[in-house]
Amino acid sequence: MASDGFQPLDEKLLVEYLKATPSLAAKLGNQFDKLEIKEIGDGNLNFVYIVSSPSGSVVIKQALPYVRLIGESWPMTKERAYFEATTLQEQARLCPDHVPEVYHFDRKMCLIGMRYIEPPHIILRKGLISGIEYPLLAEHISEFMARTLFYTSLLYLTTTDHKSAVAKYCGNVELCRLTEQVVFSDPYKVSEYNRCTTPYLDADAEAVREDNILKLEIAELKSKFCERAQALIHGDLHTSSVMVTKNSTQVIDPEFGFYGPMGFDVGAFIGNLILAYFAQDGHADKGADRELYKEWILKTISDTWTLFYAKFTALWDKHKDGPGEAYLPEIYNNPDLQVAGEEKIYGRSSP
Amino acid sequence: MASDGFQPLDEKLLVEYLKATPSLAAKLGNQFDKLEIKEIGDGNLNFVYIVSSPSGSVVIKQALPYVRLIGESWPMTKERAYFEATTLQEQARLCPDHVPEVYHFDRKMCLIGMRYIEPPHIILRKGLISGIEYPLLAEHISEFMARTLFYTSLLYLTTTDHKSAVAKYCGNVELCRLTEQVVFSDPYKVSEYNRCTTPYLDADAEAVREDNILKLEIAELKSKFCERAQALIHGDLHTSSVMVTKNSTQVIDPEFGFYGPMGFDVGAFIGNLILAYFAQDGHADKGADRELYKEWILKTISDTWTLFYAKFTALWDKHKDGPGEAYLPEIYNNPDLQVAGEEKIYGRSSP
Repeated sequence: MASDGFQPLDEKLLVEYLKATPSLAAKLGNQFDKLEIKEIGDGNLNFVYIVSSPSGSVVIKQALPYVRLIGESWPMTKERAYFEATTLQEQARLCPDHVPEVYHFDRKMCLIGMRYIEPPHIILRKGLISGIEYPLLAEHISEFMARTLFYTSLLYLTTTDHKSAVAKYCGNVELCRLTEQVVFSDPYKVSEYNRCTTPYLDADAEAVREDNILKLEIAELKSKFCERAQALIHGDLHTSSVMVTKNSTQVIDPEFGFYGPMGFDVGAFIGNLILAYFAQDGHADKGADRELYKEWILKTISDTWTLFYAKFTALWDKHKDGPGEAYLPEIYNNPDLQVAGEEKIYGRSSP
Repeated sequence: MASDGFQPLDEKLLVEYLKATPSLAAKLGNQFDKLEIKEIGDGNLNFVYIVSSPSGSVVIKQALPYVRLIGESWPMTKERAYFEATTLQEQARLCPDHVPEVYHFDRKMCLIGMRYIEPPHIILRKGLISGIEYPLLAEHISEFMARTLFYTSLLYLTTTDHKSAVAKYCGNVELCRLTEQVVFSDPYKVSEYNRCTTPYLDADAEAVREDNILKLEIAELKSKFCERAQALIHGDLHTSSVMVTKNSTQVIDPEFGFYGPMGFDVGAFIGNLILAYFAQDGHADKGADRELYKEWILKTISDTWTLFYAKFTALWDKHKDGPGEAYLPEIYNNPDLQVAGEEKIYGRSSP
């Protein structure tokens, strides 16, 4: 074990760890003779074990001090486990239906024990590739975004509580820098980690690199990402951070969580659906042209936004006399203001 | 002395403190027999002493745990001395010509020892009331704003350094809340601390309170103030935070310093000049109609902005291959981009 108390677990050490940790042992009914342990290696950054006994299951996630996908050549703070656990706990408090419960967090070991999201849940991206419709996806994801973003914003929090929450996440700088690089920088220059379908998309990639107007817009969005502490965002809300069945939607992997602009979560999710839409032609075959499925994706994009807007503003209405300090009731709660607000957003109606 | 090591100083205790503090005693040439001590009571928040010996002078500023102007009924964290000292030191490093040097800071005592800004310096607001022209004011204040704002922004800092600087100031929440109240809330509602020339301005004050479109704009500015950690701002850059002679401009009292939107400093200074402009009619008399002076104020407003813009963009040009991460050189340093940027700001030229 390293002097900082950190030790990467293999299966044998994992069992010892579970036996010695009452909160996790209890979830397994303290039965260790028939344990099944499966390492599910599709994460980019971490080791993730599913541990099952005849009376229960847990997921154990451990961060290592580098990016697993690439190896020890790309170091990455294992402190990300702290930000993941902290964000998971906060999001589970605000939206328990769509976030797995954290049973145990060990900061020194960078280890989280959490609820196992059981089959038939699969990663949403795989479902989109297989052409499966999820009729409740827009309803659920909009609920997750509305609740986690509203309740951590100044529409609900005092500026005192908001500033202290912002400060707690300022340390998540390495993960933020990874986003700055892979979302706001690499796509706009030649970079060793860029990948596109060569040679077919080379010209398109070059066109992006040479679109100065686009790049100026991106610079403004990057500054907003780095500067605007609006709400606790998931920070990586693509379709591989969501697990689904027809009836259930679970949002996982918030190690990029910090106080940033709300639009980054909403945009990431919708942007990934747009990518999935354009990818469908590549998945189509004789038996299934995917045209109806593309319609469903478009409807899900539109429903996600419409439902998010409705749920978010409903929370705002519900708490308009609450603790939030962005719009003080003494100044803003009067009947004319809603009209003024709508005119401002939608333009004045013609006389 | 309180258990936290804090003790409000009177003149006698102040002399003992100076004798026991080598960095301050040295500034006074270690001569304590002919000390002159003057308490200058025009601050709203703190006690400020000018201490002079035959061989030197210092200013001693001590924060008390309430707002001095109002009394113990309005408690206010004495930790503000820490944020004032920290901001002063950073601003003096970035712009030593226009910021007094800090000789000594005692966090427990909430006490700052700093350079005495000697006569004939006076508070700029008094100069504006007396109708005195300051030919270098725009040059100096634009230099102060350009340097302190540029060098603490992501145009110069890495996101790592920027985030850690932001975190350092998250604790200045009470002073930020004071600004939120007196700048972004009280003027738009009936409040016990509001003052206007009754009854002459009552209708104007009411019109402000009932202007819903204006209040929605103010809410957006307030959110930006609370959320956007753009650069280390002074936070209270009105004309009483500036001391002047014809040749010198010194910016003081940055206890409201934190990472906020740059526009708050630029806007506060220019806004105060606009107030001074409209106040001139009230200061005019037979011998001096103040018309020329009003012209000078207008010119100073325009020069302040023009010079700030020129100096800020010159710093940006100078450091375009520097450590700043808002615009990475590999993406943004190409000759076409400046044209694209100007088109974006000024509109495309007609064909």
